[in-house]
Amino acid sequence: MGRWVIIAPERAERPSAFLRPPPEADGGICPFCPGNESMTPPEVLSRREDGASWSLRVVPNRYPALRTELQLVREGVGLFDGMAGVGAHEVVIETSDHRATLAELPAEQTGSVLRAWQERMADLARDIRLKSMIAFKNHGAAAGATLSHAHSQLIALPFVPGGVETELRAARRHFEEKERCIFCDVMAQELRDKERVAAETEGAVALSPWAARSPFELWILPRSHCSSFETATAQELRAIADLLRILLRKIDVALEKPAFNLFLHTMPLREPPNEYYHWHLELKPVLTLQAGFEWASGCYINPTPPEEAASFLRQTEVFP
Amino acid sequence: MGRWVIIAPERAERPSAFLRPPPEADGGICPFCPGNESMTPPEVLSRREDGASWSLRVVPNRYPALRTELQLVREGVGLFDGMAGVGAHEVVIETSDHRATLAELPAEQTGSVLRAWQERMADLARDIRLKSMIAFKNHGAAAGATLSHAHSQLIALPFVPGGVETELRAARRHFEEKERCIFCDVMAQELRDKERVAAETEGAVALSPWAARSPFELWILPRSHCSSFETATAQELRAIADLLRILLRKIDVALEKPAFNLFLHTMPLREPPNEYYHWHLELKPVLTLQAGFEWASGCYINPTPPEEAASFLRQTEVFP
Repeated sequence: MGRWVIIAPERAERPSAFLRPPPEADGGICPFCPGNESMTPPEVLSRREDGASWSLRVVPNRYPALRTELQLVREGVGLFDGMAGVGAHEVVIETSDHRATLAELPAEQTGSVLRAWQERMADLARDIRLKSMIAFKNHGAAAGATLSHAHSQLIALPFVPGGVETELRAARRHFEEKERCIFCDVMAQELRDKERVAAETEGAVALSPWAARSPFELWILPRSHCSSFETATAQELRAIADLLRILLRKIDVALEKPAFNLFLHTMPLREPPNEYYHWHLELKPVLTLQAGFEWASGCYINPTPPEEAASFLRQTEVFP
Repeated sequence: MGRWVIIAPERAERPSAFLRPPPEADGGICPFCPGNESMTPPEVLSRREDGASWSLRVVPNRYPALRTELQLVREGVGLFDGMAGVGAHEVVIETSDHRATLAELPAEQTGSVLRAWQERMADLARDIRLKSMIAFKNHGAAAGATLSHAHSQLIALPFVPGGVETELRAARRHFEEKERCIFCDVMAQELRDKERVAAETEGAVALSPWAARSPFELWILPRSHCSSFETATAQELRAIADLLRILLRKIDVALEKPAFNLFLHTMPLREPPNEYYHWHLELKPVLTLQAGFEWASGCYINPTPPEEAASFLRQTEVFP
């Protein structure tokens, strides 16, 4: 049916692969805490500001959905198509502090996380078998997190997944017709209306988009046009990190520390800059479940109009 | 971005619209139980075999995502498109017995549920503003059910949703190339291989499909080609109902009564029979969560190969 699925039997070894008992009891030993570095595979990136202790580490996932050591073999199986699970699956340990959430970290540390995504993306892009990278964060058990210590994940894929392809196609179509970036157009319209703007700074804008799929869905966009996260400047990353931090603090107050998914939308790897796509982050507090209707139709029912969500967040005060 | 979302603020009145406390405590009053009929809107269909008590009721949803009383107005809002929420949202109360699950009902009652879907579909198809009907069932809180009394839901939409359109397009493309139904082709190949066949009867086949998106995802197909559920014969419905009941009993044993989503894939309303599409049911036990990666990429990671799921279910014995 034209979709790729990653069949990853190794991930069933994870204690929580099937929803059963609550994942890691916090009393257990956390593999992401200082002193337990030997519980993770060797790090591929780390920050040690003073030589003493680390403030951020990136390590390969111990239960990877994909592996770089495989040969990229594609084969037909009767009607179907198969491909070896070539790719990379890494974990960004966002802080050495077991209890701190991304929202609670100092502003520089939020920036450091986005820079780590970008550095790893540049490195992974050197493997030409890899076609795209998905950066995401699951915060809280309801959002799919199996460990509570703040972390995000990077998955580099040997194909461009359907969801990314669909968005690129829509953006290309808009550009062909109007010769303008659809995200720049949306931002301009939303900044005039204000209704769906949740927060804005000099460098970035946060919207609860028209046709938001779930309550308090948010997009965080750099104001200036830039197609790929890979080529974003340090200043652009900083602007997005600062606004992300404000939003995380706002949803913590407004929605009582909800579970959330955060993810990056950007061009596939190694694409030259273009005028039609505009990288951004998407933030989805987990307040409703995807159920039968969504599975059956690919369509969503959202009980919270985006204008209400944006207005509520605009009025939520947080301290820097 | 080319997708429709239903913004339904009325549904936020539901106590469980936001995941918070566990929905209905079972000690509360169940609006679907005999004696509490006044707690639901008036029924649009019911079965009373002996004139005494009902065995199945269909009622409009008290918190509808869509309503038939609205005018179908479409409008542009700057870059965006809006449409009044015209449609129908009904609930099929599958039994008068508060404690019985669909798996536990007698075989005739499972058939009665599918026939109720079909009867309502025929009635809703008379409203030419409605373009498609989604029939689905959420069983268990983890699958999105807010009431435990066995029920399914019908949503008729004024458009054909993206997920349905994508599957139809893939089936049409296969037919244009091969002049064969892709589902008939898949069934023939799977019945030769046996690996991914979970159960089969004279009239129907259950597969854990190639590239299953989640553990134990299952498709239940009528053996003989039929494009639309709307025109399925009583015999075909009975064959699917009987196999569905066997599978529900198998997953209850194999996966310890999991939460699940069940849904119908069929042609949009009022389409004449065709050779390229083949209606079927899809059954998804809820064993993993959709998390950041899935949201970001539209792609899935499945820790259970479909061959293992099918083999496990083939070996699971259930009594009729």
